Amino acid sequence: MKKFVYAFEEGCKELKSLLGGKGANLAEMKKIDLPVPEGFTITTEACNQYYVDGKKISDEIITQIEANLVLLEEKTQKKLGDANDPLLVSVRSGAVISMPGMMDTVLNLGLNDLSVEGLTKLTENRRFAMDCYRRFIQMFGDVVLEIPKYKFDKVLDGKKEICGYESDTQLTAADLEEIIEGYKKIVSSEKGFDFPQEPKEQLMMAIEAVFGSWNNERAIVYRNYNEIPHNLGTAVNIQSMVFGNMGMTSGTGVAFTRNPSTGENKLFGEFLINAQGEDVVAGIRTPQKIDELKDALPEVYQQFVDVSAKLEAHYRDMQDIEFTVERGSLYMLQTRTGKRTAYAAVKVAVDMVDEGVIDKKEALMRIAPSQLDQLLHPTFEPAALESAHLLAKGLPASPGAASGKVYFHSADVVKAREQKVKSILVRTETSPEDIEGMVKAEGILTSRGGMTSHAAVVARGMGKCCVAGCGEVKVDEENRIFRIGDQIFKEGDYISLDGNTGKVYSGEIKTVEVGLTGDFAKVLAWADEFRTLGIRTNADNPLDSETAVKFGAEGIGLCRTEHMFFSDDRILNVREMIVASNKVDRVKALDKLLPYQKEDFIGIFKAMGSRPVNIRLLDPPLHEFLPHKDEEISALATDLGVDFEVLKSKVESLSEFNPMLGHRGCRLAITYPEIYEMQVRAIIEAAVYCKEELKIEVHPEIMIPLVGHLKEFTILKKLVIDTATETLKTLNAEVVYKVGTMIEVPRAALIADEIAKEAEFFSFGTNDLTQMTLGFSRDDSGKFLDEYVKKEVFDKDPFESIDQNGVGKLVNMACELGRQSNPTIKLGICGEHGGEPKSIEFCHKTGLNYVSCSPFRVPIARLSAAQAAIKNKDQ
Amino acid sequence: MKKFVYAFEEGCKELKSLLGGKGANLAEMKKIDLPVPEGFTITTEACNQYYVDGKKISDEIITQIEANLVLLEEKTQKKLGDANDPLLVSVRSGAVISMPGMMDTVLNLGLNDLSVEGLTKLTENRRFAMDCYRRFIQMFGDVVLEIPKYKFDKVLDGKKEICGYESDTQLTAADLEEIIEGYKKIVSSEKGFDFPQEPKEQLMMAIEAVFGSWNNERAIVYRNYNEIPHNLGTAVNIQSMVFGNMGMTSGTGVAFTRNPSTGENKLFGEFLINAQGEDVVAGIRTPQKIDELKDALPEVYQQFVDVSAKLEAHYRDMQDIEFTVERGSLYMLQTRTGKRTAYAAVKVAVDMVDEGVIDKKEALMRIAPSQLDQLLHPTFEPAALESAHLLAKGLPASPGAASGKVYFHSADVVKAREQKVKSILVRTETSPEDIEGMVKAEGILTSRGGMTSHAAVVARGMGKCCVAGCGEVKVDEENRIFRIGDQIFKEGDYISLDGNTGKVYSGEIKTVEVGLTGDFAKVLAWADEFRTLGIRTNADNPLDSETAVKFGAEGIGLCRTEHMFFSDDRILNVREMIVASNKVDRVKALDKLLPYQKEDFIGIFKAMGSRPVNIRLLDPPLHEFLPHKDEEISALATDLGVDFEVLKSKVESLSEFNPMLGHRGCRLAITYPEIYEMQVRAIIEAAVYCKEELKIEVHPEIMIPLVGHLKEFTILKKLVIDTATETLKTLNAEVVYKVGTMIEVPRAALIADEIAKEAEFFSFGTNDLTQMTLGFSRDDSGKFLDEYVKKEVFDKDPFESIDQNGVGKLVNMACELGRQSNPTIKLGICGEHGGEPKSIEFCHKTGLNYVSCSPFRVPIARLSAAQAAIKNKDQ
Repeated sequence: MKKFVYAFEEGCKELKSLLGGKGANLAEMKKIDLPVPEGFTITTEACNQYYVDGKKISDEIITQIEANLVLLEEKTQKKLGDANDPLLVSVRSGAVISMPGMMDTVLNLGLNDLSVEGLTKLTENRRFAMDCYRRFIQMFGDVVLEIPKYKFDKVLDGKKEICGYESDTQLTAADLEEIIEGYKKIVSSEKGFDFPQEPKEQLMMAIEAVFGSWNNERAIVYRNYNEIPHNLGTAVNIQSMVFGNMGMTSGTGVAFTRNPSTGENKLFGEFLINAQGEDVVAGIRTPQKIDELKDALPEVYQQFVDVSAKLEAHYRDMQDIEFTVERGSLYMLQTRTGKRTAYAAVKVAVDMVDEGVIDKKEALMRIAPSQLDQLLHPTFEPAALESAHLLAKGLPASPGAASGKVYFHSADVVKAREQKVKSILVRTETSPEDIEGMVKAEGILTSRGGMTSHAAVVARGMGKCCVAGCGEVKVDEENRIFRIGDQIFKEGDYISLDGNTGKVYSGEIKTVEVGLTGDFAKVLAWADEFRTLGIRTNADNPLDSETAVKFGAEGIGLCRTEHMFFSDDRILNVREMIVASNKVDRVKALDKLLPYQKEDFIGIFKAMGSRPVNIRLLDPPLHEFLPHKDEEISALATDLGVDFEVLKSKVESLSEFNPMLGHRGCRLAITYPEIYEMQVRAIIEAAVYCKEELKIEVHPEIMIPLVGHLKEFTILKKLVIDTATETLKTLNAEVVYKVGTMIEVPRAALIADEIAKEAEFFSFGTNDLTQMTLGFSRDDSGKFLDEYVKKEVFDKDPFESIDQNGVGKLVNMACELGRQSNPTIKLGICGEHGGEPKSIEFCHKTGLNYVSCSPFRVPIARLSAAQAAIKNKDQ
Repeated sequence: MKKFVYAFEEGCKELKSLLGGKGANLAEMKKIDLPVPEGFTITTEACNQYYVDGKKISDEIITQIEANLVLLEEKTQKKLGDANDPLLVSVRSGAVISMPGMMDTVLNLGLNDLSVEGLTKLTENRRFAMDCYRRFIQMFGDVVLEIPKYKFDKVLDGKKEICGYESDTQLTAADLEEIIEGYKKIVSSEKGFDFPQEPKEQLMMAIEAVFGSWNNERAIVYRNYNEIPHNLGTAVNIQSMVFGNMGMTSGTGVAFTRNPSTGENKLFGEFLINAQGEDVVAGIRTPQKIDELKDALPEVYQQFVDVSAKLEAHYRDMQDIEFTVERGSLYMLQTRTGKRTAYAAVKVAVDMVDEGVIDKKEALMRIAPSQLDQLLHPTFEPAALESAHLLAKGLPASPGAASGKVYFHSADVVKAREQKVKSILVRTETSPEDIEGMVKAEGILTSRGGMTSHAAVVARGMGKCCVAGCGEVKVDEENRIFRIGDQIFKEGDYISLDGNTGKVYSGEIKTVEVGLTGDFAKVLAWADEFRTLGIRTNADNPLDSETAVKFGAEGIGLCRTEHMFFSDDRILNVREMIVASNKVDRVKALDKLLPYQKEDFIGIFKAMGSRPVNIRLLDPPLHEFLPHKDEEISALATDLGVDFEVLKSKVESLSEFNPMLGHRGCRLAITYPEIYEMQVRAIIEAAVYCKEELKIEVHPEIMIPLVGHLKEFTILKKLVIDTATETLKTLNAEVVYKVGTMIEVPRAALIADEIAKEAEFFSFGTNDLTQMTLGFSRDDSGKFLDEYVKKEVFDKDPFESIDQNGVGKLVNMACELGRQSNPTIKLGICGEHGGEPKSIEFCHKTGLNYVSCSPFRVPIARLSAAQAAIKNKDQ
């Protein structure tokens, strides 16, 4: 016979999957002799069985419940429904993974017309007993019988109005008896049966309600949102009631063993004298700080301090504890691991290692990598935020907090910056032409575009605060205003953005800077001891490179050269090169770009020192660099001194149906080898300069993008080597460099063995690899992604966390094939997945050498990589 | 010691890879006692060794050549350079795979100032001997010494002018001696050394020249074009000369053992009396038909007839023979398998089976599937074509021949057809809106677009003649004219198109129709006996379906439903559906489309009978159905009764950056399930109608496109089954149908095991699978494909022949995974590759159940499938 019911003393914390979190911890507290009211837990398996049996509690389970009830009555020496000394119980759900507020609870169960008299005698307080009975009927009516709550409220409020009471406390025992009668009538008329007087019937109905609540709508939504499996089931805890509302020596409270905001090692919590738990939650009375319990009930306080210490020592982590004091006796009702801020998480972990409670590994495993973001970006001062005026809410596209004057054009932001004016760039949406403004602004606000829009992606890359897709904001770039409802904001007006929440405020709000110091730095240093994955960064300029090094990047995994082409001083030469009708003119334009590119690389090499720098040669289709509107084309025609019609037809001839799958990446260089030749020359000349003039031994890695066929790679590898060799010969110098490729076209993964024979490294470009493997354009998927998420077609957004089942298979295959034919090949990833914890674990398991992510995700990647190493070593 | 030289009597046809085609066949003829002038062959290995040794003939090889030369002198009883009876030889290249005209030949080698006297004595003809010597110096000068030919011509022509001769034959022996002196001077001044008099030196230089010719530019280009490996090398044949120009009992000729045009079993060829081979080629004199040799040299003729019969019987295939008669003696100089037209190929194969020479398998293996196209499309009458006026040449986009009046708009073509006027649709390029005109026209001419342009793909699908990308044609649709140079063609003018050559003619040219009858039908019936692959067709309408059935299609592998949406009578409802702002309006518009769709399917089911019909639910992105120009949008707004701005913004909101990877296929149905619901209802209602009213037991297979995630499939499979079940219930009927998916997104191939658990069939959509796996948009690749082909990045165009190394791996993987989890799953292919022989062999080896191709490729597919089965059984 399967065991479906465990008395608390039979359980322990290791049985969490069977007893749920609450049940397991109650049992555990019992085990270590803490004062826990008696009770028992019905297992999650019983819940699942209930659904298997077609929403029926089987006889077997009922028998076990009844047996445990008998034991409970023996232990408490009370009897359910007893007219003298009745046993009252709470019935609480308790899932394996906490789902706060998602499921139902019934208190004071066991009260009926008879036992309420017993409670009266016992407490010598008729009003108290009647109030309990009244509350029980109401809660039972709501939770178990599913009668709308307002019907009960109407009776209660009616009585109060008739009597002229302002507060519930003015109700007398007689009033309450009258209300109870009213409640009973509601039950009869709503359900067609009387309020159940038989306590066992009450109990069974309550258990069934808890089982049922596992699949109520909000619970399902919550599980979907939090990625909790639907087949876990909930346990049910039946526990003898204790009352915090039995007078001035009773009370109830909640406390953390350490401060969950700061991590300070000091009890932190609140309590209320003469109150039940629901009173704390309801917030009618202001609770007192836990320290004050010392004055109110000194013995109880000391006992609670001891219990807290014992609990934390036992669980070896900060605990979140619920307790009740009944007439001077302390009872523990719940303990669990306390949720904490990132700051507290880091401090608690470090402190506990210092205290010798846990080791470094455990400390590392306790910090959620995704939380670290909070520690890297400025936030608003909490006090200042309280008085701020909220204007609108968009998507929290890139974390941080920023205040500044509104500007609508990149050039204006640049001008403002020159005058040391802080600015916010506000646009309908951003495009590559806005890059400089984005760099110089404190924050970016767009009215269109999602979490993967240009603004969002670029801002996250820069670690810059961004609120995207804020539909309430109507931007009129031409007139340099935006509207929110009837309000109009002009250029130069102050606004503030919170990139963590997506909120937009009016005026200036003070921010607090944070950084990689103290405990945070310590934790990341520990992470470095355990991780085996290298951590590089995606950076295209010296500033980002410096930031990344500060955050611990060990190299650049992806330096996109196209971003360098957009700045005002060179875009004209780029366009000249594109528009050139023959190779001679093209080379002429490229020659003008060479000094700029060389400067770019010198800047980056200086920032990175001897760390490897992986430079991707030009990737985007050329039309991305050209204007598309007639007036812009006309202006460009004038600038370039060419005919408008000729230029327009050139622009048109370059336009593509599917640019994603078009003339880009290495395909550009097969057609126009001179572009890559210029870039390689710039890289090598920069490297030689750094080596000879600055005495920096740089390690450039030259990466050819979008390879799908071996021959593409061999042709361009030869071009790279020939160009480099020639350049070095001319300069009479030597530089060590590597040549490798992106794996981003599915075919490349399939023939990785062939390519690996020629390539010194692979870098998985999982952004494009995902787009092609899934046949999913990131730019277009917004139109149907909502529906896909709603219908759960994806487990997760494949652009956020790598699609292990699909794209992951290709990555695995490519790694295996690649290493087979070239055991020394270096394998890395440079898609945005490189900064996402689950994807990092995948990369660790796949055996990549490194991940590369945006500078502000480097600390997250370091921690994630350590966790992956620890987790997968233990397994 | 490796054997680098084989006397003819030492070789045989099986040594072709060593002796080359010519050498092996000379040896073989010798073996079966045919009159072959003595000689020997230097192997292809010697050629390769020559390159290995840095373009030097090794001593070892020289020794073997000299030894064979001694033997040759013994056999012929002549001596190289002899003053009385000199041995003269030809030096000819002979590759393993014939490369006609690509490499060099030297005749009359061995002549010098001394031996020319010997030749004079021997032939008693001083003029003849001097002419041979003159020719030899000229040929040797050109081929071996690489002196420009015109220099020799200048001497010859100068002499003729001085003497006032009109023809070479007027030159006397003395004239020729003078010319020889002139030639020798050219050699001395050009090369700095005298013309080599030592015959062995001549021979070695000639052999080296032949080796060198293996890697001359035109040979390399030829091999690239014909996909011949570059490492085969060429053999060199040294053969004792015979002379067809020794008077009226001498001659030379070329003959086929059967007619290479018609296949008729009758000697077919030409000869010239008193001539050498080069005279036949030069075309100065008109050759006589081979029959006439009977009158000229009756004994020689009878001997040749016997030899031809013996050769064909020995080789068991039609032979292409070169021969020379020297003073009444017949000599065989070459035999090889004769090239033939498709018609002849079929007839010869069938005849030879009837004659008991070969069996059916061999007959099938001898017909090139790609040739069959010729037998399925009309061609111009050869006589009529001779007098036709060529206007321009475009790409031979879709085979066939067509004449008709020029129309520029689909609607005009339709009107012309109604009046029984044959028409040619001429457009800059076609779009889906032109479909009806394309159906009703005899042929299609476009000035833009390549072999995979819309016009080309659709025309091939229809088996309709199409010349695409004819740049010389400047189309002005608005004014209904086109220009070619200065000529203007108006609407209603007659033109003719040859889809096999891409040629455009003025006026009307008579065509000949061909069909699947007689020997052709017989061969295909044999193919059906051997093939294991099923052959289906891609057809979207009853006409195509009927054509395909006539050609032997066993079902429809892909019925694209979107083409049905474009015709004038329904496109408005389609647009109404797309523009609908809510589900109610959308369903209303879909309800109007339902009867049309039902009619479509009834028509197709009627054509296909009980054969399976695989219907793909709507696939393209919705914006493909909408107009994009302001004036068209405006017209549509009026038609639909909506506001222009609203419609325009709808059109814009649907536009996509990468439509290929956008909101299409099953993604449409996840968002708008009602579209597929309508289609499924139409399919089921049509099936029920056919079953109940027409007594046809139809077998619809409902295919969900673009699936990449399991959940997409399960959601839509449920929708299909629910809709079908409800429809059948309403009609109180039963219909057996299948539900499956396209595998066209790479991810689908990677998770084929998951999908196969739910799907009854997979159909590989290799067009899209190729685009996504290679990251290659077909619409855009034109811009760089040229460069890719030139630089040999591809072995073959991956859109023509399946990329076995990349896409093929995915297909293989998906088949294996799919069968693992669903052993009864049906696997097919419906990309354009389904009609390409190499791809069909791949499908056979992969174990697919069927291939599906356009109707006109069904016969090709049947034959290819048979060949694949035969080839892979034998291996």
